[in-house]
Parts: sequence; structure tokens; C-alpha cells
Amino acid sequence: MLRQFNMPIFGTRLTLGLIEEKLKEHGLLQATTRTTIDSKSVIELGAFTIRFFQTNHSIPDCLGIVFETPKGTVVHTGDFKFDLTPVNNQTPDIHRMAEIGSKGVLVLLSESTNAERPGFTPSEKHVGDHLREAFIKAKHKIFVSTFASNVYRLQQVIDATLLTNRKLMLLGRSMVNVVRIASDQGYLHVPEGMIIEPEEADQLNRNQIAILCTGSQGEPNAALARLSTGNYRNVKVESGDTVILSASPIPGNEKSVSRIVDNLFILGANVIYGSGSATGMHVSGHGSQEELKLMLTLMKPTYFIPIHGEYRMLHQHRLLAESMGMDREDVFIINIGDVVDFSEGAPKQERKIPAGSTLVDGFGIGDVGTVILRDRKHFSEDGILVVVVTRNKADGKIISGPELISRGFVFAPEAEGLMEEASRVGLAALHQLQAENVSQWNRLKQGLKESIGQYLYSKTKRRPMILPIIMDV
Amino acid sequence: MLRQFNMPIFGTRLTLGLIEEKLKEHGLLQATTRTTIDSKSVIELGAFTIRFFQTNHSIPDCLGIVFETPKGTVVHTGDFKFDLTPVNNQTPDIHRMAEIGSKGVLVLLSESTNAERPGFTPSEKHVGDHLREAFIKAKHKIFVSTFASNVYRLQQVIDATLLTNRKLMLLGRSMVNVVRIASDQGYLHVPEGMIIEPEEADQLNRNQIAILCTGSQGEPNAALARLSTGNYRNVKVESGDTVILSASPIPGNEKSVSRIVDNLFILGANVIYGSGSATGMHVSGHGSQEELKLMLTLMKPTYFIPIHGEYRMLHQHRLLAESMGMDREDVFIINIGDVVDFSEGAPKQERKIPAGSTLVDGFGIGDVGTVILRDRKHFSEDGILVVVVTRNKADGKIISGPELISRGFVFAPEAEGLMEEASRVGLAALHQLQAENVSQWNRLKQGLKESIGQYLYSKTKRRPMILPIIMDV
Repeated sequence: MLRQFNMPIFGTRLTLGLIEEKLKEHGLLQATTRTTIDSKSVIELGAFTIRFFQTNHSIPDCLGIVFETPKGTVVHTGDFKFDLTPVNNQTPDIHRMAEIGSKGVLVLLSESTNAERPGFTPSEKHVGDHLREAFIKAKHKIFVSTFASNVYRLQQVIDATLLTNRKLMLLGRSMVNVVRIASDQGYLHVPEGMIIEPEEADQLNRNQIAILCTGSQGEPNAALARLSTGNYRNVKVESGDTVILSASPIPGNEKSVSRIVDNLFILGANVIYGSGSATGMHVSGHGSQEELKLMLTLMKPTYFIPIHGEYRMLHQHRLLAESMGMDREDVFIINIGDVVDFSEGAPKQERKIPAGSTLVDGFGIGDVGTVILRDRKHFSEDGILVVVVTRNKADGKIISGPELISRGFVFAPEAEGLMEEASRVGLAALHQLQAENVSQWNRLKQGLKESIGQYLYSKTKRRPMILPIIMDV
Repeated sequence: MLRQFNMPIFGTRLTLGLIEEKLKEHGLLQATTRTTIDSKSVIELGAFTIRFFQTNHSIPDCLGIVFETPKGTVVHTGDFKFDLTPVNNQTPDIHRMAEIGSKGVLVLLSESTNAERPGFTPSEKHVGDHLREAFIKAKHKIFVSTFASNVYRLQQVIDATLLTNRKLMLLGRSMVNVVRIASDQGYLHVPEGMIIEPEEADQLNRNQIAILCTGSQGEPNAALARLSTGNYRNVKVESGDTVILSASPIPGNEKSVSRIVDNLFILGANVIYGSGSATGMHVSGHGSQEELKLMLTLMKPTYFIPIHGEYRMLHQHRLLAESMGMDREDVFIINIGDVVDFSEGAPKQERKIPAGSTLVDGFGIGDVGTVILRDRKHFSEDGILVVVVTRNKADGKIISGPELISRGFVFAPEAEGLMEEASRVGLAALHQLQAENVSQWNRLKQGLKESIGQYLYSKTKRRPMILPIIMDV
């Protein structure tokens, strides 16, 4: 994005610290302008005045955004919960939110991640109690896997490590980076000498070691996955070690997380896993229904756009707004690229702008389109068959072939007879077409494709992608 | 299996009814011998006497199996729970289980599906209350999606349909089959005239219609998925209709089920979804930890093999057995194909037998092996590139090519320059090899593959499968 559009970047201190790391990596640090903001900042951008309000989430310094426009005020919550006993004393600024609401909000855009969950999301402090207890009970090494960006969680692991007189190892590049940046900036308090390198662990007993690692979502190359298969270079999970998964699997990751848990049990570890609420080792960074209602109450918006979530979550968030008295026509559930226009009083939803995913493959950004994906899907299911025929340039006579080469279709040695017969079928089709005086490449290729395709389907009930190639020599 | 090994089949009445349907389909009904058994049956097979005991599960007539062998008694539970208020009065025969245990059990094989769940699985009757309530509340059509084989659940839907004076439509082939077979055999009680065809629905009001349908696991071609996208021929989900998902998504199916819920909400339906315990619309057919402990207590086995489950479940089941006083060395967690030998007193785990999955693809059974799967995976990720060269048979001179044809790699029109350059690179490699007097097909093909592969990787960072073809004409 920044290579295409050199936009100014505004962010809180930690955010910019994390972003600068990425910009360095891509050689963009010099080319960009970055401005540090905090909850008191005011930014003037054209006709807009932009202010902020403190919220809570699983990373420090989260801010909601207030866009004051000539047509009214637009509020974007960002990710939030109402943690009234936060780990860092960054209490959500409810007074400021009330003030914004009192002045009048035209549209509220509020996040919907937990719109399906009744009640109130527990405080991050809740996790600390459980971590402490597990650290005290653990007789050997203790591994904790969580999101590197969850600085509060890291702090609570560090506190439990200190309490039990352990040293702490950091595994995974993002874990090392975040701990460095967050402690440099004073967000994370790491006692001097606590962090050790894997090599230094040899001088310690197993019960003097704690390990913070990435990979809580089952990412196949992250630290936890490699530990679970015994493939981490100089750190091993041993029988009697404790492994805590301090995260809930994001929908879609359940299977890979489960496989890791299986493997850790095979190694003899005591694994604390499962959804956060059951083990107490995780709480969500997103507000549940009562918190979403609290935000709606504070902001008192005229119009409401639930954002961030699958349709069913946006729908549940809409039902919450309706339960509080909003009319359905004042709530907009929109898709990526949809525009809701407030410029002429009553909102209109008529326009669309181009938006959505851009696929990155190798060096290519956005060049993998529908045709390529469809082809990949096709031959990944049924394989591919290349059919090569050489033809005499002068008289169009077939010199050799059809020669058939397949991949991912049938195992060649066992299917020799099938391939020979398919070749004969293709040749017959070509002769038939030539007898009808058809000589165009496309028609001949089509003939090969159809005749061989039909023959193979009748014999195997599979439809490999058939690639006919005619060489004129 | 039956085509390869014509084994006698023993089954309870409903099981055989369902199996016979499948055997008919495959023309095997005449060729097989089937014997109907019940909980009182005794089967003599060689040195073995086989007896049974009544259990509960989500399908009627489930039996545990007792193998009396010269070396001792082996008990296989099958799937079970202890539902003490079952829908059909088929109470689990705890007295019989106690008797088996009293006589002595050498090995117990017990299922582990819910070994991670504390407590006791609720009774199937629990679901009936919630279904009834939802049927009474629903103002329009009501759809219930569940496993067709869950005859008790079907009965409870039928009861709620009768209570609210609705007619019932059945969508999905297996739903129609199971209802027919189970009611023919007296397992399911369907009031006369309750079942209607979709065409008959036009004469009814929306609140006089209930629909039982397949697809609760998000299967893309089942009734529910098609209903959710408006693609079911003559039945539509309309705004205000109620849709009940009376099943929990099996791990791995969460995403497809969620997509269906999203789409049903978009159609304006009131969807009751989520894990069964939350909505009350589903209970598991598998016993939780207290039930697994009850089975272990009743059977008092000398040795224990937890079965049916991922490693972590088998491990949790072992922990349960250990918590009840069993020694770890008397519990065996085994893989598919592992053999535990009890023939010489103390159990030995030394042998393996060939066992596992057989892949079926089209007409092919077991012919899709590692090579084919690896190839499919390779080109599904990076596409394929066919490189054709024609060579003079007499002097080995290259007549035409390398011609490059790609699929799923780069979009051809935009990549013309890339392909031309890759062709030149390949030709240079061939000339180089010929200058070194190399003329073997394999070496030349390898040269083409490597030179073009390296060039393309340097330009695109992708590694398409390269298929070099040399035609001698």
C-alpha cells in the first residue's frame, strides 16, 4: 500500500514502534512520514477534525476515533472491550465517550467480534490468577504460547516467571521483537537478567525455566508447532513439562491447534488447552453483548453500522441495537466496498467502491486471478494430462503422437494400457476431423480434448485437465 | 469390502434395514448373508462366544459386544452414553454390564469421543423440551436440520410437529430413507398424513409447515446448504422462518456451517445455532467423563484400551482410568494397525497389521498413492508449465521449441515476455548440453527443467511443476 500511496501514518507509540520494524524490513522507513498520537491528540485533515478516546483491547494504547465532519460526527470504535480492572491501568475513558455521545453522534461504527456472546468479557487480570497458579504447580519447564502482540499477557507471564524464580526464554521472531520494542518503550517491565538464550538453559534446572513462544494458532512454522514435533533446534518439550495455550483457536484453526495438542501429549507434556473460558488461560480482547450495548448507550448514534465480523455477528449486533430502541432502517449492514452516503441528510446506500482482497503469490501482487485459481482447483482435484501431436507443416499429416503425459491423474506404470487406448481414441478423432477437412488448430485441439476426456471419464470417472499441444514441424 | 471378502453380517434390525438399502444400491443384497441379532443373541464363532449388552447412543438398538475367548473376556463398548431417561425406553442395561464385570474382563475397549468433557452428557429428552418451545413460538415455517440417523431426534421433531398441528416435509435423500425404514420397522411413529411432498405445501399457511432436512454439518450439496443459498428447487427459506441446527459442528466443519448460518440470516430467517449445550437443540450421543468412569467401574477390566478419538482424547481417557487406580502400563494407547497380543498371559505390543485409509477417486479404489497426491499438491500451489521440444530423430537437432504452455501459473497474455525469455533460457541450456555431447532424453529434460525453473523462480518466486517433453520426429 505504502509503495503505491505514500500516505502519512498516525499511530500511538507502541503501534509506530511495531510498524517501524516492518518499514525497516521493506526499506520504507525513510520514505514515510509518521506522527505519534495519544488519546489527547487533535488532527486537522481538510474539513475534518479528528479526535480520539481511550479504549481497552489486548494491546496497549488502543484508541477509538472521532471524525468531526461538517455533516456530523462519525465514531469508529476500533477493537474494544470494557476492562475496568486492566493490567496497565489504562481504564477505558467512559467519561469522554459520554461527552462525545452528549454532543451528538451521526453514525457509530462499532466492532462485532463477540456480538454472539452474552454477558461481559472477563478482565485480563483474570488470566493472571490462573497463570500464577499453573506456574506454582509446574514441577518442570513451563511453556506459554500466546499472540506476541498481547503485551498484557506477556507481562503477566513475566510476573509469574519472576514469582516462581524462573528465567525466561523467548521463542519466535515476533515474540523477540515485541518484547524488545515494548520494553524499550516502557510498556513491558522485564526484570534485568530474566531473559536468557536457549544456550544458557543448560546451566539451569528444568524448574527454573519458563518459555514464551509464538504459534498459539497452530501456525505450522511457528515455535509451538516445531516444539510439538521435536523440531525446535535447541529447546525440547520433555515428559513432565507444562504447556499452556494462552489463546483460543480462531475459527478455522481448530484442527491445526488440536494436532499440536495431540503431539505435545505424545511427548508426555501436561497440556492446558481448550477454549479460554474453560481453562482460565485466555480472555478475549473483544467486548461481549453487554459491552456492545454500553458503547451504543454511551454514543447514542442516529445511525449505526456494525463492523468487523461475519454476517451473523453483524446481524446479532443489529439485534442488540434494535433491542435498545433503534429502528432497523437506521442500521446498515454493509459489504466490503459498499458506501453509505450521509452528505445529503438522510443516508443513502447506492454507490460502491472497488475494494477487497489482493492475492500475493511469490513476487506477484494481485496477478493471480480467477482463471489461475480455477485451473489450480481443477487439476488439484483430478490431475492433468498433456497430449502432444506433431504435424507436418507442409501437408498437415500427423507425424507422431498423440503422446500422453499425465501428472496427478493415474499412476503411469499401472495405467499403460489406459494411456495407449486413450492415445488411439485421440488419433481416431484427429483422423475423423481431417477426413472432414478440418485443419484449424483450435478445432483439432478441441477434438483431442473431448474424445480423450470422454474416454477417460468412462473408464476412470475422473476428469483430468487435458492440455492438447499440436506442434507443426 | 464385501466385494473383496464375503463376510457374514450381524446387525440389529434397524442397522440391517439401513445396510440393506446400501447393499441394494450396489447390487450386493443377494450375495451377502445377514443375521438379525438383539441384546439377547449368542453367536458362536470358532473358539469365541459372542454376547451383547444394551447401550444408548443417538441411534436405536446400540449394543456393546462381549467376546468370550479361551484367554479371557474382551469387551468392546461401541459408541455409548448412559441416558437414564431415553426417548424410546431403551435404558442401558447396567445390570448386565455389572454381571459381565463381576465375571471378569481381561480387556475393555471403550470409546473416547467425549473424554475431554467433564460431567455427564444430558439426556436426549432435554432436546425435546427446547424443540417443543421453539415450535410453539415459531410464527412461520420451521426447518430442523439434523443427522438422518438420529432417529430419536427425528421422533422428537415429529412430536413437536404434531403438537403444533403442522405438516412435515422431508428434504434430503437419507432423511427420506431413514424415516421410511425406521417407521416401517416401528422405531419411528409418524402419524398418518403428516408427511407431505413439497408440492402439497402450496395449500398450507406458512405456520402449518415444518421441514426436516439433512446438511447440519454444512455439507455443500445437502438440503440445508442449498436452502441457505435459495437453490432448493421448490422450497424456500423466507423472512420470518425459523431454522434450527439440531447438531454440533464436528471439528473441521465449523466454517461451512457458519457460512450457512450467515446466508440464512441474509434470507431473514431466525436461526437457532451454536453449540448444542448453549441452545439446548442438541445433546451428544457420547458419554462424558463421568459416564466413561461408570463404564470402567462396571467392567473392572484388567487391561484397558481407550478407542475412538484423537490422541488427546485417548490420553484423557487414560488419565480417567489412572484416576480410578489403574496402572499406566495396563493401559494401551495404540495406533491404527497396532496389535496388542494377549495370547500368552501378559500383553505384548510388538506386531502390526496393514490397516488404514483407502482413497477412492472416481472408479479407482486405492490407486491414488503418494506420488499422485504430492503432484496434485505441488501444482495446486504453483501451477504447471509444459515445455515441448521437437528434435530431429536422425541428427538430434532441435527443430522447434521449447514451446511453453502454462496453467495455473501466470496469466498468459500478461506474461508473454516472461515465457519468451524462459524459452530462450531453456534453448540455451539444450545447446550447452549438446555442445557437451549430451543427448540422453533424461539429461536433456533435466536441463530444461532446471534452467527454466531457476529462471522463473528468480523472476516470480514461484515454482511451477515443469513437465519437459521431447518429441523425436
